[in-house]
Amino acid sequence: MSQKLPLPFPKAEDCPRHEIFPGVWISTWWGENVMCSLVEMRPGAVVARHEHPHEQIGLVLAGRALFRIGEVESELTAGDRYIIPSNVPHEVIASAEGLRALDVFCPPRREYQ
Amino acid sequence: MSQKLPLPFPKAEDCPRHEIFPGVWISTWWGENVMCSLVEMRPGAVVARHEHPHEQIGLVLAGRALFRIGEVESELTAGDRYIIPSNVPHEVIASAEGLRALDVFCPPRREYQ
Repeated sequence: MSQKLPLPFPKAEDCPRHEIFPGVWISTWWGENVMCSLVEMRPGAVVARHEHPHEQIGLVLAGRALFRIGEVESELTAGDRYIIPSNVPHEVIASAEGLRALDVFCPPRREYQ
Repeated sequence: MSQKLPLPFPKAEDCPRHEIFPGVWISTWWGENVMCSLVEMRPGAVVARHEHPHEQIGLVLAGRALFRIGEVESELTAGDRYIIPSNVPHEVIASAEGLRALDVFCPPRREYQ
């Protein structure tokens, strides 16, 4: 699915939502070459280890989760930052608090439009 | 200035800070093709009208500001989203509350590294 967003101020309700893993919901908006994805992980939800050619960088907004990027892991909370280079395997395990984060994909993930 | 960030978890204190307009501070991190910029606008601070070839998309995290993108303007608050295509003039005027936002630039703004 792909859709046009109203520019320059898409509202949350204009943006597609996807459940990408059980209990992991995203809401996305994008330009030509980059995508933002607001992520909500329910308590204990898991983004299973995976990789993709898209670069992914982001910011934790609230809650807490264990991030494992390549072989490096860290428990991140609000204000923490991460950088996932192209094709590096990564996984995220939300704490009992759940997690909110802002992910950025470059180029956009077409399947999330 | 350009520097290497520690991967994959740069801490805020590892990231460069710049005052890009009076009362407008950013802290940046980036990958090969995309940059995040956490923006703090002091109350009443102004990002003067300007444009750049880099795409810019983002999310308001807290506070309130008037965004004018091209000829369209809107007062944005926490959770609101914006998309600024390449070379479209834009300006931002913070309210008396100030503003926090997460800006994304593609490609990275080399002068903010």
